[in-house]
Amino acid sequence: MARRSGEAGTVTVERDRLIDLCTRAAVAAGADQRAAQALALATVTAESAGNTAVGVAHLFDYLRSYESGRIVAGVSPEVFRAAPACLVADARHGLAQVAFDEAFTELVETTASLGAATLWIRNSYTCGELGSYPRRLAEAGLVAVACANSPALMSLGGSATRVLGTNPIAYAVPRADAQPFVIDQASSQTAYVNVRRAAQAGTPLPEGWAVGPDGATTTDPDLALQGALLPFGGHRGGNIALLGELLATWAGAAFSIDAAPFDRGSEPPGIGMFILCLAPETFPGSVHRVAHHIQRLHDEHSVRLPPWTTPPQRPESIRLDGDLADRLLAATRRR
Amino acid sequence: MARRSGEAGTVTVERDRLIDLCTRAAVAAGADQRAAQALALATVTAESAGNTAVGVAHLFDYLRSYESGRIVAGVSPEVFRAAPACLVADARHGLAQVAFDEAFTELVETTASLGAATLWIRNSYTCGELGSYPRRLAEAGLVAVACANSPALMSLGGSATRVLGTNPIAYAVPRADAQPFVIDQASSQTAYVNVRRAAQAGTPLPEGWAVGPDGATTTDPDLALQGALLPFGGHRGGNIALLGELLATWAGAAFSIDAAPFDRGSEPPGIGMFILCLAPETFPGSVHRVAHHIQRLHDEHSVRLPPWTTPPQRPESIRLDGDLADRLLAATRRR
Repeated sequence: MARRSGEAGTVTVERDRLIDLCTRAAVAAGADQRAAQALALATVTAESAGNTAVGVAHLFDYLRSYESGRIVAGVSPEVFRAAPACLVADARHGLAQVAFDEAFTELVETTASLGAATLWIRNSYTCGELGSYPRRLAEAGLVAVACANSPALMSLGGSATRVLGTNPIAYAVPRADAQPFVIDQASSQTAYVNVRRAAQAGTPLPEGWAVGPDGATTTDPDLALQGALLPFGGHRGGNIALLGELLATWAGAAFSIDAAPFDRGSEPPGIGMFILCLAPETFPGSVHRVAHHIQRLHDEHSVRLPPWTTPPQRPESIRLDGDLADRLLAATRRR
Repeated sequence: MARRSGEAGTVTVERDRLIDLCTRAAVAAGADQRAAQALALATVTAESAGNTAVGVAHLFDYLRSYESGRIVAGVSPEVFRAAPACLVADARHGLAQVAFDEAFTELVETTASLGAATLWIRNSYTCGELGSYPRRLAEAGLVAVACANSPALMSLGGSATRVLGTNPIAYAVPRADAQPFVIDQASSQTAYVNVRRAAQAGTPLPEGWAVGPDGATTTDPDLALQGALLPFGGHRGGNIALLGELLATWAGAAFSIDAAPFDRGSEPPGIGMFILCLAPETFPGSVHRVAHHIQRLHDEHSVRLPPWTTPPQRPESIRLDGDLADRLLAATRRR
């Protein structure tokens, strides 16, 4: 892990070495080996795709949560079939990633046999990069749509209080001989961290990011921190966030408003996720037809889309902020 | 159908009488009895709920389309099971409403037996009020999420051209002893008719409604008519509209960009709809839990929601614009 000359403050780490370091840091924080590996893979995959908000820096949220009991260590998820097309993976206040792993094969097989299947993850810690779940299902050949809730940070329908999480929604469509097409987005206009940064810097917020404690929209980041984020796209975006909330909690996960925060206290948030899977075999040619259509939107109509014409993103090495790398090394040595 | 004194230009019509008039107008335009009744019920229900954009005035779009061949008269939908959890209702270029009716019982039964089921409607004319489909399923006790596509009117990802319809999304959750909770919204920032009205009135558009033929956002309604509508909520709203497009067309319906317009020419649009149904019995108590939660959001957090605490909206009589009533009467006498 050598610091590169000419690029002050960054180091280049081999992918496998980075996964190993993250795994060891998670184990040092109290995670069992399986959870630690799942977490390491999830955060390094996000990091290497450039999704740094849920990358290696985010791993430290998990480490602190293991130490504080917001993630319960050493539990095994319970997967059961609630109805022929409905699976539930109860994370038992462990990781959503491990619950998903536990249900994965059964979900793929159920979708293949019924044409469509659903999975609910409940009683989990925050899902991390939501797009990773439908992406993995699309890599296994399925179409997948996922939504998740999270501890409340967001206003809905003019409320002055935080009633919904930043409830992300993501979907993925498989493509022959290429990476899946993946969309992954939060339902808030901006991330909470951006409001916190503006407050630290003393800079005003753009219109439409947040409301103050009186429920009025505000550009004052300090008022926003006492108030709530706003959904993207006004009341329509709020209705999408509410759909995500209702689906994600349908199997018994905590509503966002009842979920303990994921960054303080000792109580697990107990939130949920919903995934719908469709088997392309039900409609022969559908994968090719959709891939061709999206390519056409891009080529003939200049539609800007997430990178999906690139080769699979499995870089051999990953560039990391030097301080972050130092913190990671320190975290592996905590016990 | 007497004109009311004191309310110039409106008439009050008994609900049953209005349904009869609409049915007769549809038959006069060429619809068979079953399609005419489905259409009359759909438009009168929307009208009586105050959703006038897809109410009785919208019936005339259907009448003209029957006369021009954009809706094929006298066809029966073909319903088949593409996979155990996947039904298809091919409208065969007739009405989406009739295709849905034909699949309804099988969809409800499949959902009850599997816990979750999907329906695709394909090769149909425009769906009218999308919310009516999940509402009917929720009245039968199911949770339902629906999305539909429509002939292209909207930009996506910065495109200068129209590549998506105003693709609506709707969902409904049943409630014991009360009307379902229903959300129904387009994925465009505004309806096309609002841009046309602004052009006729010569008034500028608000920012964010449309792009001109060069792809730049415009407040000039004439440029907007040559350009495209914009999705609600920027790129995130566009991604929701694209999800609706991919789901609605997955069983082989025409992509929005390939769909013939629904208001001119003689070619049927051949568009599609996707519906996901969930059986609450899979998770006992879920209906009560969600109803209580939404009530709590409303009561304790002042969340503005669509009216859902009102009694069932089946008014005995409906107030109608006088000119519209005259046109309707005339339409019943066309043959």
